[in-house]
Amino acid sequence: MNNFEFSNPVKIVFGKGMIARLSALMPESAKVLLVYGGGSIKRNGVYAQVTEALKGFEVTEFSGIEPNPQYDTCMRAVALIREKKLDFILAAGGGSVIDAAKFMAAAVCFAGDPWEILTKGGEIKSALPVGTVLTLAATGSEMNERTVISRAEMDRKLGFASPKIFPLFSILDPEVTYSLPPRQTANGVVDSFIHVTEQYLTYPVNAKVQDAFAEGLMRVIREEGLRVLDEPDNYDVRANLMWAATNALNVWIGLGVPQDWASHRIGYALTVQFGLDHAETLAVVMPGVMTYMLEQKKSKLAQMGAAIFGITEGTEEHRAYQTIDACEAFFRRMGIKTRLHEYGITEFDLDNLAAPVDEIGWKLGEHQNIDSRVVREILALRL
Amino acid sequence: MNNFEFSNPVKIVFGKGMIARLSALMPESAKVLLVYGGGSIKRNGVYAQVTEALKGFEVTEFSGIEPNPQYDTCMRAVALIREKKLDFILAAGGGSVIDAAKFMAAAVCFAGDPWEILTKGGEIKSALPVGTVLTLAATGSEMNERTVISRAEMDRKLGFASPKIFPLFSILDPEVTYSLPPRQTANGVVDSFIHVTEQYLTYPVNAKVQDAFAEGLMRVIREEGLRVLDEPDNYDVRANLMWAATNALNVWIGLGVPQDWASHRIGYALTVQFGLDHAETLAVVMPGVMTYMLEQKKSKLAQMGAAIFGITEGTEEHRAYQTIDACEAFFRRMGIKTRLHEYGITEFDLDNLAAPVDEIGWKLGEHQNIDSRVVREILALRL
Repeated sequence: MNNFEFSNPVKIVFGKGMIARLSALMPESAKVLLVYGGGSIKRNGVYAQVTEALKGFEVTEFSGIEPNPQYDTCMRAVALIREKKLDFILAAGGGSVIDAAKFMAAAVCFAGDPWEILTKGGEIKSALPVGTVLTLAATGSEMNERTVISRAEMDRKLGFASPKIFPLFSILDPEVTYSLPPRQTANGVVDSFIHVTEQYLTYPVNAKVQDAFAEGLMRVIREEGLRVLDEPDNYDVRANLMWAATNALNVWIGLGVPQDWASHRIGYALTVQFGLDHAETLAVVMPGVMTYMLEQKKSKLAQMGAAIFGITEGTEEHRAYQTIDACEAFFRRMGIKTRLHEYGITEFDLDNLAAPVDEIGWKLGEHQNIDSRVVREILALRL
Repeated sequence: MNNFEFSNPVKIVFGKGMIARLSALMPESAKVLLVYGGGSIKRNGVYAQVTEALKGFEVTEFSGIEPNPQYDTCMRAVALIREKKLDFILAAGGGSVIDAAKFMAAAVCFAGDPWEILTKGGEIKSALPVGTVLTLAATGSEMNERTVISRAEMDRKLGFASPKIFPLFSILDPEVTYSLPPRQTANGVVDSFIHVTEQYLTYPVNAKVQDAFAEGLMRVIREEGLRVLDEPDNYDVRANLMWAATNALNVWIGLGVPQDWASHRIGYALTVQFGLDHAETLAVVMPGVMTYMLEQKKSKLAQMGAAIFGITEGTEEHRAYQTIDACEAFFRRMGIKTRLHEYGITEFDLDNLAAPVDEIGWKLGEHQNIDSRVVREILALRL
């Protein structure tokens, strides 16, 4: 196990009816920016519950946060926060809305050009407090210190992390996810599953607790994921998926172990250039990274095969390949495509898809040995 | 899964050589009470590392914290803190030293008689900040908001919990546990294993993440526990045990699930009246609680049997009994006795051992159906 330092102060309020706890969780006399997306919270009852709970607070609304939240949208919210002298951001939505709120919280307090937070790792000295009401089990953003923001005009999707942007609290009511479209539910299942593999499918460092937790999460996400599309209003299934997704990326299982994240970074270009959903990019790219990097990853792939899929026969290499196939089969059973040609992407697109990795200067993977040339070869495996 | 609210702000600093990080973690200009036990920290190098790291701080030492820390000892420390106007408590030791420090931190700020914190659930409005340097993997006190204090003159061992007594930080260096006496190492293994069972062996509420994490911890603790006495200076084994013990009682696996804790409470009288180590009491009592409460616990016992011991044959009841036997066999392989007669305790002692449960007014177990009569019958099973 590698050394690590860690703390995670986010207060989690989990369960049926917990949105009613909102007013007690808010700082007294908070002047609130209520941030949400395209209006689904008005259909699933979250908006009504939140506005009821916020009675007595000064509330300004800011809606229209996109999937893959845009820098320019966030900066319009920042201007509104400054204009109205607001001092609290409440995000009601999924990972995109929460990511947007966390970026706004940092940007509004940032002395220089906020774009540098994303491009130059500008240090965050302070941020407005953020609370969240989660409506989608997927990104884990409700309990971590990370955010990912896109900027269409520059063809970029970039992330940053800072302890200053941990949410103050997050309310997780599984019932609000009953009404999600199947595609969003399936995306959340695949996204959270691959969050685990990014922190697990590297090389062994004998971190048995972290491995056991990661394997437990993958088993739960797969088992409940395969049920949820047939039983969308099964509380236990929704609750297990929601809590698993939070644990998949609240940093806990990644402590003291090497991490990969190449699939995430490679996938960004698929979203920016071809509009794939985040989870769709992961389902395409992840099996490619695993196949290309088999030599350095086969030990953990075989371990995963035994722990998650009951794969125990054959050589380590054979079991590793079987594990990759089992992952891809799982994504397909969730209704998510796993090949580039299914999105109309061909070999002629690969150079453009690989280009940003060099432009940004990324060296990806747990050994930092994935450059744009390797990215192109990985993507070629996924045509 | 049941509803829950939760936050845990403790900063964990884990790994080789991390005690050197101490000065950077301390509040600036802290006036420190350095609390430790019987002097083992002078033999294992922790005292030297800590005092080196504390150069430049005003430090007052308070040693002599007992296993099962005593109320009167803590109150002498409280007097010293007040006299010297100290504002930070640094605990260097195992669970007893840390528990003592947490109680001191609350008691020194408490307006009334501090005994009422333990006996009447006196509300903790504030507490001094506490930091810890852990020397024994066992209690989880380094990352929770609980403490247990004994008072010999009243034959009592009592606990309380408050978010005000979460440590500010805890440094966990597995290397400092190499030199522990085998008995203390074994106690820590059994103690942390039973911390998990107290939060797991109740009844199913379909909390799959919590179950998977609990099962993972039990597997790791058993596997590494069976190695550590032969390989006391294997870093990976020590690191896995230390991190598992912290996770066994940092509240995480107990969120949203019923909890038991009867074995802990019943065991207190064995410590107070007969001087058994805390873990020794658990190894005796836990199989008795499981056997007596088999009907209400057999589903989770059978689940545990399959997950931890590979027990899959026979009826659910049969598998539950086999699981209890496997737990007892594990404790014995760790060198811990599991029967009362091995400590010279006979049937004539049972009334006295059961009496405190009624005197304190405890109704124990996840269904609050264990009173002193039942405690007597449970203990009778363990003669």
